[in-house]
Amino acid sequence: MAKKIVVIPGDGIGKEITDSAVEVLKKADAKFGLGLSYDYYDAGGTAYDKFGTPLPQETIDAAKASDGVLFGAVGGDKWDNVEPTLRPEKAILGLRKHLGLYANLRPVKVSDTLVEYSPLKQEVVKGVDLVIVRELIGGIYFGDRCESEQKDGHERAWDLENYSVPEVERIAKLAFETAKLRRGKVTSVDKSNVLATSRLWRRTVAEVSKGYPDVELDNLYVDNCAMQLALRPTQFDVICTGNLFGDILSDEAAVLGGSIGMMPSASIGECTSLFEPIHGSAPDIAGQGIANPIGTILSAAMLLRYSLHEEAAAKAIEDACDKALADGYRTPDLWKEGFKKANTDLMTEVIVERV
Amino acid sequence: MAKKIVVIPGDGIGKEITDSAVEVLKKADAKFGLGLSYDYYDAGGTAYDKFGTPLPQETIDAAKASDGVLFGAVGGDKWDNVEPTLRPEKAILGLRKHLGLYANLRPVKVSDTLVEYSPLKQEVVKGVDLVIVRELIGGIYFGDRCESEQKDGHERAWDLENYSVPEVERIAKLAFETAKLRRGKVTSVDKSNVLATSRLWRRTVAEVSKGYPDVELDNLYVDNCAMQLALRPTQFDVICTGNLFGDILSDEAAVLGGSIGMMPSASIGECTSLFEPIHGSAPDIAGQGIANPIGTILSAAMLLRYSLHEEAAAKAIEDACDKALADGYRTPDLWKEGFKKANTDLMTEVIVERV
Ligand SMILES: CC(C)[C@H](C(=O)O)[C@@H](O)C(=O)O
Ligand SMILES: CC(C)[C@H](C(=O)O)[C@@H](O)C(=O)O
Repeated sequence: MAKKIVVIPGDGIGKEITDSAVEVLKKADAKFGLGLSYDYYDAGGTAYDKFGTPLPQETIDAAKASDGVLFGAVGGDKWDNVEPTLRPEKAILGLRKHLGLYANLRPVKVSDTLVEYSPLKQEVVKGVDLVIVRELIGGIYFGDRCESEQKDGHERAWDLENYSVPEVERIAKLAFETAKLRRGKVTSVDKSNVLATSRLWRRTVAEVSKGYPDVELDNLYVDNCAMQLALRPTQFDVICTGNLFGDILSDEAAVLGGSIGMMPSASIGECTSLFEPIHGSAPDIAGQGIANPIGTILSAAMLLRYSLHEEAAAKAIEDACDKALADGYRTPDLWKEGFKKANTDLMTEVIVERV
Repeated sequence: MAKKIVVIPGDGIGKEITDSAVEVLKKADAKFGLGLSYDYYDAGGTAYDKFGTPLPQETIDAAKASDGVLFGAVGGDKWDNVEPTLRPEKAILGLRKHLGLYANLRPVKVSDTLVEYSPLKQEVVKGVDLVIVRELIGGIYFGDRCESEQKDGHERAWDLENYSVPEVERIAKLAFETAKLRRGKVTSVDKSNVLATSRLWRRTVAEVSKGYPDVELDNLYVDNCAMQLALRPTQFDVICTGNLFGDILSDEAAVLGGSIGMMPSASIGECTSLFEPIHGSAPDIAGQGIANPIGTILSAAMLLRYSLHEEAAAKAIEDACDKALADGYRTPDLWKEGFKKANTDLMTEVIVERV
């Protein structure tokens, strides 16, 4: 039976990069006999323009019924004045909630080929190999909020940060399971010297850790973690944190590699999972065929690994990307004297050849 | 009339570093005729051990009545098992609230002498000169919270993020005033694509900006800011943000200089202000006379500038620190082959000589 992949290109460069990733998937399919099928759906500003909503019901339904979702990117200045509840970002927040994508995994691996692109010194980032495990459907992102109310004679707004024990248990388990397959270390990040939610987080993670005697658990305050990520990032294996801290720390960590266009992510759910590059929709270069497709291609590899358990095919795609880079191909975002300039199509082609 | 400085050494290396800063202040006083007096009070774990509370009322009263507070550092493993409301950190949080210290200013300037200590590449951090203006007595730090309650059959905890219009106006004004005396650019940081509080923040800052037509206003999401601080930190002049985001971003920014032991901060209030280094109490090296006193000495310089309006004396202290470093003196945290090793006393002495 065909494995159904739902492709949601979204806005801006979303179409170019998902097209590229699908070509690479097709090559992997031909080679490894994966039996993949592809269905395309709209989301984001593009969906808003067509249907008046950034997340049509049929996109949700199709994604739910799929074996994995490949997502491009959403957003753009064009929709800056659309009312808040209909903005493109609502598509991704809505998909997370509707599909129950409770964990976002962001691997950050600094390869020797690319270490020079990092804004950090080579001796600081060489060998970095970490994963951020971010809780994705709880916390202050999905708590109650109030846009405006009167209190003590003044207008104020509020948002509720909150976590329940089962929510923390679920994400902590995933972090410990992830660490077990890696170097066996979890760093849980919170702000328990100030926040009650963080204190519940910390004691729940400590409880869960009892079931993983072979995994070491460290706790770090979020401010200290922001510091340590820039000072000594090689100390980290798995970082486990809540939705808001994870949003900030994973973007900071993404910079370590120096090439945001190449960072993939996986959002894991109970019934299906979603895979997307961490970069945005880059409306300024959309349609020019120069976007770096590697973040999306590596996200497709994660789809094969996590949703379809096709480790060999996933690895083949990752190796093909490494090889294309080692062979000197660079999209314009990374191009320097001495390298071969590749637009999106050429980059795709050289990766497809190497799968 | 004497200008009353209240000195709160706190815990760990707090005594050594405030002693050092007071010696430097005395030299500046002798030279510039400042008329300073010093009174010492306890706070933190030390106060807890003596009085059973991390923040005795007499410390609060004295600080309130002072012309400026010089604070060392609080905390240490020793008090890890003290109940949450009596922990050393409560001293600093309590002082902020009792003294109405609504703004934390953290300058980050990467001097050419020290650029090599940064974990970032020289070409990325050279010339960085920014100030983070963090709101300090509002937001989720001081909102309602709940340590534990039952909801839908599960235990949960929560904290309320919230800002009122006047709170945002006050901090925004300070940020714009600060920018006016600098390069005229404010970057306001929020998460308005998700949080209601951030949307109120953003529109209030935009209102305040109308009164400062010569200052440019940019808005950045906090995740993007965490990225930009590591990618291209020279783009920033004044960063204005809320309490929690400010906590995280200012620690990330502190790393740019590469020498956390040398970073000062000012917490500005309506009646008095407090000045402290950004580093902690470092219990592991306390009492050994090897702590880097420069963060505290530069905080004392900020006290002269902001609380006493003694710009010449403040500048003399800052220049003396620069000169001592340019002359090759380094405390152990920064020492490398080719430099003169200085313990806390020697470092103090060479700075005093140069004031
Ligand atoms: C677009 C935005 C709502 C989203 C988030 O904050 O989660 C993005 O920053 C991300 O990390 O995927
Ligand atoms: C000690 C802690 C409560 C404090 C804070 O979070 O504000 C510290 O991190 C700081 O930035 O001064």
